[in-house]
Amino acid sequence: MFVAINYITCKEHYRERFEYLFSTRAKAIDTVPGFQSMNVLKPQKDGEDYLVVSYWENEDAFKNWTRSAEFLEGHKRAFADMAVAKEKGEEPPMHSSFKVYSVLTN
Amino acid sequence: MFVAINYITCKEHYRERFEYLFSTRAKAIDTVPGFQSMNVLKPQKDGEDYLVVSYWENEDAFKNWTRSAEFLEGHKRAFADMAVAKEKGEEPPMHSSFKVYSVLTN
Repeated sequence: MFVAINYITCKEHYRERFEYLFSTRAKAIDTVPGFQSMNVLKPQKDGEDYLVVSYWENEDAFKNWTRSAEFLEGHKRAFADMAVAKEKGEEPPMHSSFKVYSVLTN
Repeated sequence: MFVAINYITCKEHYRERFEYLFSTRAKAIDTVPGFQSMNVLKPQKDGEDYLVVSYWENEDAFKNWTRSAEFLEGHKRAFADMAVAKEKGEEPPMHSSFKVYSVLTN
């Protein structure tokens, strides 16, 4: 099994919107081959990262998703928010980076 | 549902031992009330943290575990390794810190 975690640093003013986007997520990822499940973790301490933890059959399934139409579909509204901020000359309301893992044990 | 992640920074020379300890873990946690499951995630990039992700019914179940005999039992060998390093005047072979989360969505 293969695990990808997207660590998302969210500006204070964007947290409500961020949570709304995920609670109404497109579910585009759910039909991607090799996708198993995901959890969106909300930090209990303000200022810490949100974590989007996704489980995959293998690394290729994850990589294929990052290059897929479903990836764009699933991030459409967030990408639009980022574009709006850029047009206004504002800093991005969030930034994110993936780290990838194998499962050592359960 | 409540999620605790223990972020573990491991010195290079201790990684093999660390992985051995987890792959032969005591399973003391498995019988703790409110414990649901855990994954030990191994970073694919050298130098990044290992993650011990544990799922709990609620925060109290997690907190009770951190104060339990099972917690000591499950960490016995690691604590002994740390004590040996300290006696030798060496730096700890690893350090760890918990962050806690709620599940925003699946």
